[in-house]
Amino acid sequence: MEKLTGGFTLPAQAGMDKEVKFLTEKWGVDAFRDSDGTVLSDEILEMGYDIYSTLCLIRADQEYNKANPQECQQKFLISEKITCTEEGDLVIDIMKGYLRDQFKPDLDNDPKKYWQVFDRTTGEEVALDQWEIIDGDVVKVAIKSPIKYHVYTVNFLVYQIWESTSMYNHITNNWTSEHQSGVDPHKPKTHDHLLNYLDRWIDEHPNTDYVRFTSMMYQFTLIKDEEKRNKFLDWQCFMDTISPYALDEFEKEYGYKLTSEDLVNQGYFSGCYCVPSQKLLDWMDFKTKFVRGFTKQCVKQVHAKGRKAVFFFCDHWIGTEPYKPDFDEMNFDGIIGPCLSGVELRRITDVPGNMFTEVRLYPYFFEVDLQDRPVFKDDGDPVAACKHWWKSIRRALLRACPDRIGFGGYLELAMAYPDFLDYVAVLADEFRMVKEKSKQTTPYSIGDKKVVMLDVWGKARAWMHNENWPAGHVPEVLSGIPADVDFINFDDIRNGILDDVGCIINWGQANSAWSGGENWIDEEIVTKIREFVANGGGFIGIDAPSACEHQGSFFQLADVLGVEREVGNTAAWAKNIQPDVSKDHFILADMTHEVDFGVQSKVYLANESAVLLGGTGDAVQMAANTFGKGKAVYLSEFNLTPEHNRLFWRAVVWTMGLEEEALTKWATSNICTDCAFYPETNQFVVMNNTEEPQTSTIFNGEGKSVELSFESLEMKWFTADELDDICK
Amino acid sequence: MEKLTGGFTLPAQAGMDKEVKFLTEKWGVDAFRDSDGTVLSDEILEMGYDIYSTLCLIRADQEYNKANPQECQQKFLISEKITCTEEGDLVIDIMKGYLRDQFKPDLDNDPKKYWQVFDRTTGEEVALDQWEIIDGDVVKVAIKSPIKYHVYTVNFLVYQIWESTSMYNHITNNWTSEHQSGVDPHKPKTHDHLLNYLDRWIDEHPNTDYVRFTSMMYQFTLIKDEEKRNKFLDWQCFMDTISPYALDEFEKEYGYKLTSEDLVNQGYFSGCYCVPSQKLLDWMDFKTKFVRGFTKQCVKQVHAKGRKAVFFFCDHWIGTEPYKPDFDEMNFDGIIGPCLSGVELRRITDVPGNMFTEVRLYPYFFEVDLQDRPVFKDDGDPVAACKHWWKSIRRALLRACPDRIGFGGYLELAMAYPDFLDYVAVLADEFRMVKEKSKQTTPYSIGDKKVVMLDVWGKARAWMHNENWPAGHVPEVLSGIPADVDFINFDDIRNGILDDVGCIINWGQANSAWSGGENWIDEEIVTKIREFVANGGGFIGIDAPSACEHQGSFFQLADVLGVEREVGNTAAWAKNIQPDVSKDHFILADMTHEVDFGVQSKVYLANESAVLLGGTGDAVQMAANTFGKGKAVYLSEFNLTPEHNRLFWRAVVWTMGLEEEALTKWATSNICTDCAFYPETNQFVVMNNTEEPQTSTIFNGEGKSVELSFESLEMKWFTADELDDICK
Repeated sequence: MEKLTGGFTLPAQAGMDKEVKFLTEKWGVDAFRDSDGTVLSDEILEMGYDIYSTLCLIRADQEYNKANPQECQQKFLISEKITCTEEGDLVIDIMKGYLRDQFKPDLDNDPKKYWQVFDRTTGEEVALDQWEIIDGDVVKVAIKSPIKYHVYTVNFLVYQIWESTSMYNHITNNWTSEHQSGVDPHKPKTHDHLLNYLDRWIDEHPNTDYVRFTSMMYQFTLIKDEEKRNKFLDWQCFMDTISPYALDEFEKEYGYKLTSEDLVNQGYFSGCYCVPSQKLLDWMDFKTKFVRGFTKQCVKQVHAKGRKAVFFFCDHWIGTEPYKPDFDEMNFDGIIGPCLSGVELRRITDVPGNMFTEVRLYPYFFEVDLQDRPVFKDDGDPVAACKHWWKSIRRALLRACPDRIGFGGYLELAMAYPDFLDYVAVLADEFRMVKEKSKQTTPYSIGDKKVVMLDVWGKARAWMHNENWPAGHVPEVLSGIPADVDFINFDDIRNGILDDVGCIINWGQANSAWSGGENWIDEEIVTKIREFVANGGGFIGIDAPSACEHQGSFFQLADVLGVEREVGNTAAWAKNIQPDVSKDHFILADMTHEVDFGVQSKVYLANESAVLLGGTGDAVQMAANTFGKGKAVYLSEFNLTPEHNRLFWRAVVWTMGLEEEALTKWATSNICTDCAFYPETNQFVVMNNTEEPQTSTIFNGEGKSVELSFESLEMKWFTADELDDICK
Repeated sequence: MEKLTGGFTLPAQAGMDKEVKFLTEKWGVDAFRDSDGTVLSDEILEMGYDIYSTLCLIRADQEYNKANPQECQQKFLISEKITCTEEGDLVIDIMKGYLRDQFKPDLDNDPKKYWQVFDRTTGEEVALDQWEIIDGDVVKVAIKSPIKYHVYTVNFLVYQIWESTSMYNHITNNWTSEHQSGVDPHKPKTHDHLLNYLDRWIDEHPNTDYVRFTSMMYQFTLIKDEEKRNKFLDWQCFMDTISPYALDEFEKEYGYKLTSEDLVNQGYFSGCYCVPSQKLLDWMDFKTKFVRGFTKQCVKQVHAKGRKAVFFFCDHWIGTEPYKPDFDEMNFDGIIGPCLSGVELRRITDVPGNMFTEVRLYPYFFEVDLQDRPVFKDDGDPVAACKHWWKSIRRALLRACPDRIGFGGYLELAMAYPDFLDYVAVLADEFRMVKEKSKQTTPYSIGDKKVVMLDVWGKARAWMHNENWPAGHVPEVLSGIPADVDFINFDDIRNGILDDVGCIINWGQANSAWSGGENWIDEEIVTKIREFVANGGGFIGIDAPSACEHQGSFFQLADVLGVEREVGNTAAWAKNIQPDVSKDHFILADMTHEVDFGVQSKVYLANESAVLLGGTGDAVQMAANTFGKGKAVYLSEFNLTPEHNRLFWRAVVWTMGLEEEALTKWATSNICTDCAFYPETNQFVVMNNTEEPQTSTIFNGEGKSVELSFESLEMKWFTADELDDICK
């Protein structure tokens, strides 16, 4: 077969024309991009390849931003909790604990209209005439006649005077340039300015083929403390979308006023882990509508000038929500996302709509990584880092292959590591082989029903988990399993979406957005899920599934799961169901050690029908149960290892009654290997996902098998006929 | 000094007259008792010593009990939770999971009046015309037109046909005699019968000096499952005090009806670990009044016949509540309790009123112990068991010495173990020495303020914790510390009882009766405690102190404690306060290893002023904080070891600002030793509480010290002058 090329975006850099040409050949590059902090030379621009140019509108025109400080982006913050311990006014330094370089209290817009002061001991708001602002070098709030030994907080509006990406680069990469700010396109003056600026910018970049929006306007929330450490970080929340103008517009449209407390949420903030209020959901819809309208206009202007528009699905992505309906109405030509894992690959590849997809791989060509560990300096090992991430990604790559890959950062850093340059060539060939052989068609999936994750967000937050997030490990497993995976929320269940579902997974801490909180005391939810399982469906719960204390139960589906958690209300009740672990259970067959997820489980077997798979009857690590025609599995926790990966897959297929098929149809026996079959192209691939040699028994579509050996990370391709020939 | 004798009650037994005489001499016995299942011979009765005769009125007259099955004691039970999965009536075998030998559903009293059926999915009660009883060999309840996939339970009234102590003896000690039942003196017929019976019984026992009531009427709750395992065990709850008659009387007196659900409490039962409802508190008061009235009458009849009445503080003690007001109005002459630990010693010695106090020591002269381990058979080691318990008790003995000790059970079993007979003689001498030297006066206590434990029960449940109970370890420490210890509840704080308090301890799982639940969102509670600490008080919190999610906090006293628990609401907030452990802190000085209570702590430092003493900043095992003039300590858990014992004592004195005094005034340096000084008798005692030799530096009242050596378990006595002479 001819060597495959293309589908590769190189971060080029002025002054490195020779290296760019070298890598263009070596890596099969067909497009160049600039990065935050780099520019492309005329020579590169004129090499005849596609040019991607980065544009972050909200901080592109710093002159304008500086001249219009009131156009800055804003958010609500909460002061520290201050206990009143003295007589007289209680004076609170509201910014204490925050980085004063990042935020500045907004005294331009009437604080009495937007700020709120709370007595957190009683929960009552302090009357407007009972507090006042003391302006000065440090803005303070004085509370008149506070109640001694009550706790007070101030919700206050700030300008974000140092834009988050700029701040990140200064802090992490030691940039010393002037701090950049970001403006809010929702504010009318800026709205018009940026649309005009966009037209000008396109005209000034005649070589640009693709405007790479990085991204649209509101960033995920990143708040630093006084020592520039992360204080609050949520990749999904709407804290950064606030402005007095938008709040006033919201009130006009929705008929009620959104208050600071609706976002500050007692100080928890409206994090994605909190079950959202209806007010917050309204606000999210309101802002999403605005972001989509403005973005659609931007894309329209790009197209009007004969260029293409691509969306970088990271950074300022809030409000774009690619999995919410109508994302494709913005008419992007492509979507690009950073990609560390199978989840992050699927986050890009599974976005609905007709766009090309590109993943930006790691390591970024920076000296250090996101955790400040050396990569392209000192004893950094960019090959090891790259292999580490690529291994995770490859499992998912077999399920859904993007159109393109790429890298980012400073090319000059990468050039110093020739073995890295070699490895990227291998990686790029593997990607292109998957793309070519699969033709990006849908691989074989087990059964005819979906495996779904259930939380309060559902599809809107599909593949948005990351591996550092509590529930992130399960989506990572799901990103590479031969099944049709989807994400649903509680309204989907209310609306009866379970017909095409085979297995529901619910993971989370009690009362979190992931577990579901009070959704579980809605009789419609529990009865529909019980009906689903009783009729043959599967249910997998992890940590605190269906948890919400109500009417004598903590796990509302204790009957389905066969387990219950002791939270103190049944302390005097014995936990007498104490069977031995059922070591011969189908689910455990690939485990070489006892199940132990390393948590202190207060979960006990609640049902004689439950089968213990790990832990003890009064400290369950894993259990299986039957309910009607269906099955359920409980895990006290879950973390990702090749064994656990397989354990989880076995749990999924056991609950769906697909054990035989899972093991013997287009399957591979070694837990360190993965495989996929593409019916439309008749191609089969199996790969070793470790750096050690492996052997595995491979099964074709009719259950015939052959044992094969694999070199480190090796991928083997067969047509169905070729595989049939070597199978017995 | 002449050999001390007396204060010792021997369990005598017919047919062992010679052995009784031998032990009377050897152990210094001055009273005999019978036990459950033994009788005393005429010869023993006429030896001239005091005779204690056991009487359990409610099961004393089994002929009456058998002839009057409707007079049996009763309680509410709850059926298993049954999920409706089929069409048609839902039929529930209500007794499934319970021991059918123990309980029988009460169909004599109209079930539609007393039983309740609940839809536990919605929490709604099923209408009375929507369920009916199916009588038969097995009593069932049929629910008409249940909602499919809802969960149902039945609250039902039962007779307890097998009395708990009888049942215990059959199951544990393999008794084969006829099952005994217990009747309820609240039922009018039985009320009169038992009072008549008591008079007759006294007349029939002319040698009896002391009627030993074991005990009055309602037992702590012990429910067995079908396999005779404990299903529910609560030493303090009022589940066993129910009868239709009493419920009706209650309604007349309190003006509202108490329902089955008020006790069944969603299936949690009204366990002592649950924060009680006002209705439950009303019921407890109602029954306590009844028990006291009836008991007072019994004691009056005993006294009228020239005998004395003693109360065995165990078994059927519910309603007597010795620490609730007016216990002494019942006019008991003495109180006796079983005693395994310091807590159990103080439970007896600290009961208010003018009664003699006696503790029944362990091991009980049975073949096996409460955990069914061999003691007086096979490879049982009664000396080791006895030393184990006596070591725990001795610490508390120095603080509060009872009038008497005793044993129980079958003397014939003990006689087979001569080394046990020898050791009891030593133990008895130690007891009598403490009693003699201290004259039972109050020992020196540190400072002039109390150390109090705070929970919803307070004084009413003083010293009621046991070592198997979550919060039991701290009272065990407190039982032997040189401080004035007390127990308070939240109303005590509302009523302003904190003036004489130096340190408040709050331990418990969140939302439990021990931690306090919603009491912590009462602004009066938190402001009073903050004021108390700010003015110099101490606060020690363990596990989930002040826990109740409210207004952005989980620990409502996070400001005082300096720590907060992550329960999922602040998942995106960094926990950046990450100091090293302050190894040189006063509290840690006697620790030889790092603090680790073996729990996975989700507690983090919430305050820069907090000092880390164990764990890490985001998984705190122990921390100390200052708040105003006061101090607070947090511990993630606590369990009892000599080191932890001292650790806790150091925490107490640190919060009270009494560090110097604690270490150098009437003190002993070795953590395996304890001491006490009795100002009124001028006596000082120090003892080795291990079986290994120890040396320790001893401090007299002026801080002068001397190093002394101790043999295994040795106690040394000095007058203050003698100690002064040997100190430098």
